[in-house]
Parts: sequence; structure tokens; C-alpha cells
Amino acid sequence: MTIRALIWNENEHEKTNTLVAKLYPQGIHGAISKAFDGAQDISFSVATQDMPEHGLTEERLKNTDVLLWWGHKIHGQVSDAIVERVQKRVWEGMGLIVLHSGHFSKIFRKLMGTPCSLKWREAGEVERLWVINRNHPIAAGLGEYIEIEHEEMYGEPFTIPEPLETVFVSWFEGGEVFRSGVTFQRGAGKIFYFRPGHEAYPTYHNKQVLQVIQNATRWAYNPAKPWVSIDDAPNVPHDKAPVPLEVKGPRLHHDGEAGFR
Amino acid sequence: MTIRALIWNENEHEKTNTLVAKLYPQGIHGAISKAFDGAQDISFSVATQDMPEHGLTEERLKNTDVLLWWGHKIHGQVSDAIVERVQKRVWEGMGLIVLHSGHFSKIFRKLMGTPCSLKWREAGEVERLWVINRNHPIAAGLGEYIEIEHEEMYGEPFTIPEPLETVFVSWFEGGEVFRSGVTFQRGAGKIFYFRPGHEAYPTYHNKQVLQVIQNATRWAYNPAKPWVSIDDAPNVPHDKAPVPLEVKGPRLHHDGEAGFR
Amino acid sequence: MTIRALIWNENEHEKTNTLVAKLYPQGIHGAISKAFDGAQDISFSVATQDMPEHGLTEERLKNTDVLLWWGHKIHGQVSDAIVERVQKRVWEGMGLIVLHSGHFSKIFRKLMGTPCSLKWREAGEVERLWVINRNHPIAAGLGEYIEIEHEEMYGEPFTIPEPLETVFVSWFEGGEVFRSGVTFQRGAGKIFYFRPGHEAYPTYHNKQVLQVIQNATRWAYNPAKPWVSIDDAPNVPHDKAPVPLEVKGPRLHHDGEAGFR
Amino acid sequence: MTIRALIWNENEHEKTNTLVAKLYPQGIHGAISKAFDGAQDISFSVATQDMPEHGLTEERLKNTDVLLWWGHKIHGQVSDAIVERVQKRVWEGMGLIVLHSGHFSKIFRKLMGTPCSLKWREAGEVERLWVINRNHPIAAGLGEYIEIEHEEMYGEPFTIPEPLETVFVSWFEGGEVFRSGVTFQRGAGKIFYFRPGHEAYPTYHNKQVLQVIQNATRWAYNPAKPWVSIDDAPNVPHDKAPVPLEVKGPRLHHDGEAGFR
Repeated sequence: MTIRALIWNENEHEKTNTLVAKLYPQGIHGAISKAFDGAQDISFSVATQDMPEHGLTEERLKNTDVLLWWGHKIHGQVSDAIVERVQKRVWEGMGLIVLHSGHFSKIFRKLMGTPCSLKWREAGEVERLWVINRNHPIAAGLGEYIEIEHEEMYGEPFTIPEPLETVFVSWFEGGEVFRSGVTFQRGAGKIFYFRPGHEAYPTYHNKQVLQVIQNATRWAYNPAKPWVSIDDAPNVPHDKAPVPLEVKGPRLHHDGEAGFR
Repeated sequence: MTIRALIWNENEHEKTNTLVAKLYPQGIHGAISKAFDGAQDISFSVATQDMPEHGLTEERLKNTDVLLWWGHKIHGQVSDAIVERVQKRVWEGMGLIVLHSGHFSKIFRKLMGTPCSLKWREAGEVERLWVINRNHPIAAGLGEYIEIEHEEMYGEPFTIPEPLETVFVSWFEGGEVFRSGVTFQRGAGKIFYFRPGHEAYPTYHNKQVLQVIQNATRWAYNPAKPWVSIDDAPNVPHDKAPVPLEVKGPRLHHDGEAGFR
Repeated sequence: MTIRALIWNENEHEKTNTLVAKLYPQGIHGAISKAFDGAQDISFSVATQDMPEHGLTEERLKNTDVLLWWGHKIHGQVSDAIVERVQKRVWEGMGLIVLHSGHFSKIFRKLMGTPCSLKWREAGEVERLWVINRNHPIAAGLGEYIEIEHEEMYGEPFTIPEPLETVFVSWFEGGEVFRSGVTFQRGAGKIFYFRPGHEAYPTYHNKQVLQVIQNATRWAYNPAKPWVSIDDAPNVPHDKAPVPLEVKGPRLHHDGEAGFR
Repeated sequence: MTIRALIWNENEHEKTNTLVAKLYPQGIHGAISKAFDGAQDISFSVATQDMPEHGLTEERLKNTDVLLWWGHKIHGQVSDAIVERVQKRVWEGMGLIVLHSGHFSKIFRKLMGTPCSLKWREAGEVERLWVINRNHPIAAGLGEYIEIEHEEMYGEPFTIPEPLETVFVSWFEGGEVFRSGVTFQRGAGKIFYFRPGHEAYPTYHNKQVLQVIQNATRWAYNPAKPWVSIDDAPNVPHDKAPVPLEVKGPRLHHDGEAGFR
């Protein structure tokens, strides 16, 4: 079974900033796609924000197992209707990997229910991502830590819900720390947030960073049939209950009615 | 220190249905307010959906420590802007107790990031809420379980994130189960969902149900100063870092800039 | 890659009780092994408490990926030294599936750090295990619930730590509920507790129960290299720190020393 | 209601090492007790390892609401029977605060079910504990972080179960990070592990460190009546079930029997 990954990129800095264009001549999505070099169990395609429907049509999402999300400068221009569509697919079982500045994307905030805010500094400092559980599938093939020579700092408090698992914690040269790899579950969908990836540095050319992205794609994949009815609220008639019942007392609703929303 | 509770009720069934009006002549909010009889550390007030701004002005929320929420029939008519305002206050530290059909309220779905769907049946059947941790503050004063003679059934799967704690699990006469008391944290705010409370039955006249509501109000109270800046993303200039730094490599941002959203 | 499962059974009731011997002529372990019929990615072997070292030698455990544990009547006769050996292997990454009365086994209590107590009744009543997350790998291939005609009742409070995930919740005919499928992580090891399986009933001939056991074996498998050093506390000399340091202030220890225990 | 805290100290370094004796002339327990200066809702007493029964008699524990634990050099000499006694009291609802090198104490390992191992270095380096949730009661009165000029380093991986909450994460000058304030629940007992406190440095004279200890004592306090029966496994006879039953099928046990262990 092949995992169908979809790399989604805002693709804005690359078009408007010479430095980023030079670092990522095939776009940040192009660099991320190298994560799947040699991964015969993963196929991928790419979508960018400037495509019709941001490249995230119903059909496209239906055929996506794991979505990777990089956005930053134009989060606010992502359509609310499409964000709801993506959220629905995560609930149904699509994996989601949110990268770096995606912490402030509409989709991540919507799935977390929290601000997802943090401190930040762009000073080209050292980041060292410590592996908390070296046998976690997302950490496969890594050593004790990943060291990145130049990165943007993100500092705590990172206002997310308590994660299901903390996989990486970062140390920054300037004195801050950050929970830089955290997992969540929303409906049938597995979510991984991964911190590194500032557009002004060559982070997505780092082999270990790409390794984590490959690992996380495998981890986030849920082979189960999509749970398409997950947002339904079915009425169970009294005579169809596992233990059939006679109705007692008064009623406001009738059998088979749809619930209020 | 007095805890300032605000009981919010949709107040719709009471106005349109004779049965509900008869069961709850002072409104469901009136019945819930009896939870605070004799609780000298809690003061309360009431707001309903038909008030201007649903009774949830900035000022009112600022002066609320714990908000209790009952809604059902007209969830969809609650203003999105006011829901965002309530969410912000939860992030800052206001406690939130979501009751019964409030599982489908805009505010609960927004804070959970999941559908919050479930199965249901209105047959006046027995519900028995088993206490999972009898020493949890929310279970203070209870025995092994609460038994309710007539209740609406809510059945699993209840599509919420994994709770921080499971305090109650319900058994239903018709054969279903439900995680009927669960806690969450969102920002500085503590959230408790409590299942019982169908409008067609006298649930809010049950002493033990009221006891749980009183307990939960105390539990959800956070005496800390509101975290009003929780949605900010402050820039930390390189020379103001805990370990002051020289900037290395290129930059896209300048010191003190606001982050992109 | 083949998953190497080891089915461990106390094997006591089968030898001393006619009823159990008749229900499980090949032993409870023999019935459980049918869970792997047709699972080409899983190989299995069997060990029983009466074997030398309970069949759990260092060598045997080293060659086990997932251990399944059924015990009841003679928990107290399991050697403490061997329990510690099993615990160490779980920490290193061996999966563990604890079945039914194994809730009171030394190994489960040791890994949980809690009493793992519960209520119980042997009345041949109906148990219905509701699936909480139908897309969880442990629930693959199931419907909304598993119904078992005759089972022993286990009732809450089940005194375990808050689980990582709640996969099943049981309804019992006599009025109780139970968190009957729960997951935990201890070191690199994944743990699943699964409730059904009383020796006086034919539960391990139920196809869906066997399906869960097969699923859970796959879920608990960790392909990472065993984390054999997980109980070490290595000293990091000051000049070998990621950021090499000069020693400041006084010291009680010297470089490379072993930590106190 | 006064919270009855008990400060337990190994009290070994103070007796055998001049440096420690000079830093802590009243013992480490003496310094820790300053955490309760001015806390009118907390009373405290002290016990040391060299007392009969390590100062932890049944009577003493029965009259303790929150136990604070500092040990290091002679963990191995703590009696297993007394460790079990303390564990039982935690299950019943006594709070437990484990300090610094207590990560390797018998009681902490027993309650966690994991190795609780970590990396370490004694180089007098800077530690900065970042506050993750500033409105958590354990962080009351703190700023963004606590900075300690000279501390021993503890580095990840810290092999604990996923915590209920992560309250502090530490940054170390030498390049490591550590989850330095984490909460757990075991039975009715609340547990807080707090990292700082090396015997060779004046950490327990730091006002903010003492503030955290005072806060944590309040947080860990459970006013509920001790859950003394938490390790029982009561039989519920068929005719005393919430829904009385006729026995169906065969039985191995008889009504009111004690469960096997």
C-alpha cells in the first residue's frame, strides 16, 4: 500500500524574496519533497496557495493520506471554507504534518482550539532538537539530537493543548526552549507539529530534518477506511437499541430525527 | 475570594414548550442556579441568548470566573464574534462548564477542534454515572455512582480529543455507554463537560447533579491574573535574549516586528 | 519483517478445573494462538508459568517483539526477578498485551504504579464493548461494538493511571461500566490492556476478541532497535558538552562517575 | 483547613561533606522548610532517613497531606516495606513532591513504572526553567522563567511516562534541555517532580525555587477523605448488582469471594 502524501506550500516568500528564491529554487515544497527520496512506500504531489481552491479540492483531499502544511505570510488569505474542508478530512483520518510557521495557520489553530502563539527571534542562532523517546517511529534513524547551525528561535510558552506525546524539545543559543515535536489526535486523524523550517535558512536541505518528515508521514498514515460519518449525530430508536426499550416519560423528539446544531 | 459564576442558557425550550416550561418554571438556568445554594464562596448571575450580545459583553466576561453553558435548539444562532470572545476568555483563564446538549455548541466545538458528535435516544431510560476517581474534586460528596431515573441517552463514540481526565462514565438502560464527565485545558482555562440535563426530564432538580455542578465550578476556577496577552507572538530582539546574541546569517524580519498571521 | 509474539499463560485453571479444561482443551494459550491464524506477518510461540524461569529466559525475551500475558490464580508465585526482567524488556521496546485477570499480575501493577483494582462478578452476564475510535488500529475490522453473551463483570473504578488512549468501554448487563481497552507507554514499550477473557466462558473462541488481539499485537510492535541503555544515567563531562564548559563552583562528583541509586 | 506537609530528607551529604554542611547548616530539609515561611495554610514537620522506620511510620503518614522527598546517595538503603507504605498513602490521596535526585528514589520509580533515568553533569552551569503555563497554580507568582546561576545539569531523555502536564522546561548552558516540572496522578494522589536542588549549590536558598515548592504543596493537597480501600477488589453478588441478575452459565467463584492476586 502506497501512502499518498500531499505537500502544501503557501509559496509566497519564494516569489517575492530573492534570498528565499535562491535558497529554495524549486520552492520550499520542492525541498520538502526530497524527504521522500527513496521512500518506495510513499508517493507525493504538491499544491500551492495560489492554485484554484488552494489546490485542495474535495477530490484531491479524498485522495490524500497525509497532508504536509507550510504557510506563513498569507495565512489570513486562506479560505475559511477550505480550512473547514481540510479539518473534516483530518477528522475522517487524514494525517496532518504542520511545519514551522504553520503554528499560526488557520487549520492548526482550528484543530487545537488554542492560540498556538509563541516567542520568536530571527538571529541565525543554533537550534538543537533533543530526542525524548528515541524509539518513537518519528525519531527513527536519528541520534541523540539534531543540530541546526542557523535557525529562527521559537520560545515557550507555546500555547497548545497538552500534547499526546512530546517527541522533541529544542534548545536555542539565545537561551530559550521549545517543545518542537508534538503529537495530537483529532477524530481519526493523527497530527504532528514539527518546528524547524525558517524560510531564510537552508533547514529543508538538512538530511535529518527530511528524515523526520519522512518518518512522520509514515506515522501519520491511517490505513482505515475514512470515517466519513464522524460529524453525524445518529438517533437510535428505542426499539432498535442494543437492549430494546419501551419509551418512558415525555418526549420532545421523534424517532430518527436529526439532532439540533 | 468569591468565585463569580455566570450561568448561560439558551432559554428557548422553556418559552416554546409547555412541558419544559412546567418542569423548569424559572428556566433551566433557574434550576441550575440552585447548585450554588449554600455555597458561600460562589456568587452567580444569569445570561440568556436573547439578551443583547447574548448577555456576554466584554465587561460581563471580564467579571466572570467560571461560565456554565446550556444550549441546544438554536446553537446556530449564537453569534460567531461572541463565541470568539468567549474562547479568548477561556484562553485567559476563565473556567468553562459545558452541559448536556452543549456538546454541539459552537464554543465547545471550537475549543475541542473535533466534531463532538455522539449517538442519542430520547426514551426516558435509566442513566447511571459511575465515578472513576472518587477523590477527584469534581466528585466530592458523591457515592459510587449517580443514578438518574429518566434521561436521554448519549452514546459513544463521542468524538472529542483524548481528555486530560475521565471523571464519570455512564451506563444506559438501552445498552450504550458514554464518557459523561471529562476535563480539558485550553490555554489557562479549565474545561469540564458534564453530560446529564435533558430538557424533558427533571435532571436539574437532582441533588447529586447539582452537587457536581457546584464542585466543577470550584474546580474550574483559576485565581491567577488573566493571561490577556496569550494570543500575542512577541519578538525577542537578539540583544535582549536571555543570552544576548549577534545576528548571524540573513534576515527577513526586523527587531520588534509583529509576526505574520 | 515478521513480528515475534510470545503467548504467556499461567496454565493453572486448565490443569485443575474440568470445566476450563473442557472449554480450552489446548489451554487458554492454545485458544489465544488462533488470533494469529492467517496473520502472515506474525509468528508466535508459547510459554507457561510452570516452565523453568516461567519460560521467560533472557534469551527468549530478547527474541520477543510482543508479549501477551494471561494470569490469575497464581500471580503471587511469579518470580519477582523475572518480573523485573520482563519490565526491563518493555522499557527497551517490547510490546505488552495484558489480558483480563492480568490486571492484577505483578508485571502490570509494576508498570502502572497503581493498584489496578476493580469490582467483579461472575454471573455469565452480557458484556458489550463499545469502540471509541473506530479508526484506531486496535479496532480494525470491528463494527460499533463487540457483544459477548456470557462474561465476568469488571466494574469501575479501575485504578490505573489516566490512559494514553481509551479504545473500548464496556457495558454490563448488571449495570456497571469499565474502560476495557486502554493504552500506555512505558519507556520504548507500548502496552495494551484488554478486559475480556474469563476462564469459565468461551471468550477466546470469539472471532472479534481474537481480531482485537491480532490488531493489538501489530500495534504494540516497535521495530526500533531495543533501547538497552534505557536505565543508564550517563555522565556528560563538561568538556564534552554540546557547548563545552569550564567547571564553575564546587563539585562533589568527578567526570565520568556513575550516578547514585 | 491546614495542609500538613512532611519534608523528608536523606540527610547524608550534610553529615559527610563539609561543603554541603556549610551550604545547608540546618540540612537540606531545613532549607526546604523555608518554603513555608508565611504560608499560614501549611504546617510542616521533618523526617530523615536515619530515624526509626525512616521517620515514616503508619501513624506519621496517616497525618501527612503532602510529602516532599529529597534523596540521593543512599536511595538503595531505603526499606522496600516503607516504600510500599508510602506508595499506598499516595494511592489513598497523599500528595507527593519529588525533588531533584529523587528521580532515582525507589518511591518515584515505583510510582512511575519506568527507569526515570537521565543524563547529568556537575559543572556549576546556568539553568533557566521556562514556565509553560503561567496560570498553572504551581507557577503562581513567577515571571517568564527562573534563572539559577549554578546548577547540576540533567538532560533528556528523562525516561518517565508522558506527564499529565508539563509545567517547566529547563535550558542548560552546556546545551541540554529537560522537562523539569511535570505532574502525574496515581490513584487519588497527585505527584509533582521538580528538578532543581543539587546539594553542592545554594539552590534551596533561591526564593523562586521555594515559591514553587510552596505552590506545589498547595496543588498536591487533596482534601478528600483517604481512599483506604483503593487496593481492594470487591465482589458484587449477582443479586446486589445495580440491575439484579440471575446467574447464567457456569461459575468458578462463589459470592463474596476475594479475588486472586
